[in-house]
Amino acid sequence: MKKLINQVEDFVRESLEGMAAAHPELVRVHLDPNYVVRADAPVVGKVALVSGGGSGHEPMHAGFVGRGMLDAACPGEVFTSPTPDQLLEAARAVHGGAGVLNIVKNYSGDVMNFEMAAELAAAEGISVANILIDDDVAVRDSLYTQGRRGVGTTVLAEKICGAAAERGYDLDRLAALCRKTNAAGRSMGMALTSCTVPARGSPTFDLGADEMEIGIGIHGEPGRQRLPLPAADAVSEMLATAILQDPAYSRVAREWDRSASAWQDIELVDEPLKAGDTVLAFVNSMGGTPLAELYVVYRKLAEVCRKHRVEIVRSWVGPYITSLEMQGVSITLLRLDDELTGLWDDPVLTPALRWGA
Amino acid sequence: MKKLINQVEDFVRESLEGMAAAHPELVRVHLDPNYVVRADAPVVGKVALVSGGGSGHEPMHAGFVGRGMLDAACPGEVFTSPTPDQLLEAARAVHGGAGVLNIVKNYSGDVMNFEMAAELAAAEGISVANILIDDDVAVRDSLYTQGRRGVGTTVLAEKICGAAAERGYDLDRLAALCRKTNAAGRSMGMALTSCTVPARGSPTFDLGADEMEIGIGIHGEPGRQRLPLPAADAVSEMLATAILQDPAYSRVAREWDRSASAWQDIELVDEPLKAGDTVLAFVNSMGGTPLAELYVVYRKLAEVCRKHRVEIVRSWVGPYITSLEMQGVSITLLRLDDELTGLWDDPVLTPALRWGA
Repeated sequence: MKKLINQVEDFVRESLEGMAAAHPELVRVHLDPNYVVRADAPVVGKVALVSGGGSGHEPMHAGFVGRGMLDAACPGEVFTSPTPDQLLEAARAVHGGAGVLNIVKNYSGDVMNFEMAAELAAAEGISVANILIDDDVAVRDSLYTQGRRGVGTTVLAEKICGAAAERGYDLDRLAALCRKTNAAGRSMGMALTSCTVPARGSPTFDLGADEMEIGIGIHGEPGRQRLPLPAADAVSEMLATAILQDPAYSRVAREWDRSASAWQDIELVDEPLKAGDTVLAFVNSMGGTPLAELYVVYRKLAEVCRKHRVEIVRSWVGPYITSLEMQGVSITLLRLDDELTGLWDDPVLTPALRWGA
Repeated sequence: MKKLINQVEDFVRESLEGMAAAHPELVRVHLDPNYVVRADAPVVGKVALVSGGGSGHEPMHAGFVGRGMLDAACPGEVFTSPTPDQLLEAARAVHGGAGVLNIVKNYSGDVMNFEMAAELAAAEGISVANILIDDDVAVRDSLYTQGRRGVGTTVLAEKICGAAAERGYDLDRLAALCRKTNAAGRSMGMALTSCTVPARGSPTFDLGADEMEIGIGIHGEPGRQRLPLPAADAVSEMLATAILQDPAYSRVAREWDRSASAWQDIELVDEPLKAGDTVLAFVNSMGGTPLAELYVVYRKLAEVCRKHRVEIVRSWVGPYITSLEMQGVSITLLRLDDELTGLWDDPVLTPALRWGA
């Protein structure tokens, strides 16, 4: 295993310490339990936005803590959910009196621990809403997940909801916005190589010298199939087509009913993308794929979108939701309206994303 | 070779086409010869800032084209210098009547071709200054280079000089600023793995399963030595110490004398870093090393700087000058004064770097 780390068990902590040293004006890092909060937390009167999940997907989530995006991020160990205690402490640290919105990627461990944390916070009088991101069109009921996995749309929701919280949306309105953003986003990824989880020390899976895994998850979970690696255009077209042709997606989400202090099942339907839609196109590196290759993928994606009469009006290209050093790419298309576009364009000031501020 | 490309010979062009499609509001891409200019070029009355070099180091340079940074970037084929014709056409496209400053990394091919382009431009009445970046403390007279190689300081000089050009510095003042920035910057890198140049199809060099190459160049040129890969802290300390203990560096630079229309040799001395200095600390991924590992390296770098009483007042962490998918890291320390700090903080609006705008 070739990595720039010291002891495996110190990796997450030392990485957070480095982040604290590099960006003291933007974030504060709390260790044991580990969480990262914006430097001016808590912001009184603003809904606090919290996300978290296993480490290994950097810059997500801690790199997105700061004005206009997350109030707190809770990194677990590599590919391991943060604990309920950790999530609760983070919620306490950022709660400014207007409640907490948790953005939760749909992985069974994350869902369970965020639910426990929400109950604990509610018991302390903190209003909490948990919104699930489940945008990966590749597979249903994958390893670690019931339903669809949460991937690229997560960071788009963090940006959009972060801007809305800054503008003064209350908790109900922010939860509705997050639900809408999730419903508007669809993603699919692929891998050329496996990553190596430090604690394991060997690749998570084996791929042949000329193989790719299409529809892979961000922890190396199996995707749709293994295929001989084709030209980049074919990869881009496969991902884009799967997203563009994905039908309406219905499922039941479990959300905390604050008036009844109980979990409630609500039915959600994500409408498919269709001709005439305007979208944000997000081409993401899984970590080890360089930027020049992302642009080759983007080139074909733009062509496929044109053919489907889906207009790209915003683009985002880079390594934003990664799987350690995995080589591969994911595509996310997010249907935009004026509200989402305006919030996407709002200023943001975080270690990994900074504009207009 | 596992890469997201189509035909090898189309890689650079298609990547540029993807970039053009993704950022039409920021840049325009010209093909055959290939160059990227800011969308509003030429900016009348402003010195135009041009850089270029082989592709494979993205986002450098094309990702840094835009307001507050470069007016044009000339990407050659992968790890191959741009041609004099290409550089000349780019200079013509961005010349706004106030001259052109070329920022040239010290590689023999780049130097030769930028010199030819400068003579051709001068013959057309365009005032040109070429400033060499030679900040790599690892080795002298490496493969492809006489003297020191140009690495991390290049992108810092692009940001700082780009801001100064925007503020209205004239060509002489801008050339002096670029010379000063180069003299203030020192870098060293290392690799865990080789990259694979598409046209070759196999790794540039072999490294054993537990080996690293310390002092490597951004094209995989040999560094100082191969060593068993130690813990990240030892890597960070080796790089930082080499930079901090680097003695005064004297050499002769060849610059275009516009009054005499001839090349002139000038003597330059870079003063060493010393206790009491304030610096910008730049921890860079060679491409395949993920952000979480960069922060582990940064953590130790901050400690080493403290021990040397060198104060880090600005930091930059990410993949900004890469070697395709190579795993590894480089460190750059840039001695700051009020002028450089203010210019570093100025707004910038490019595909890869955007803040305050």
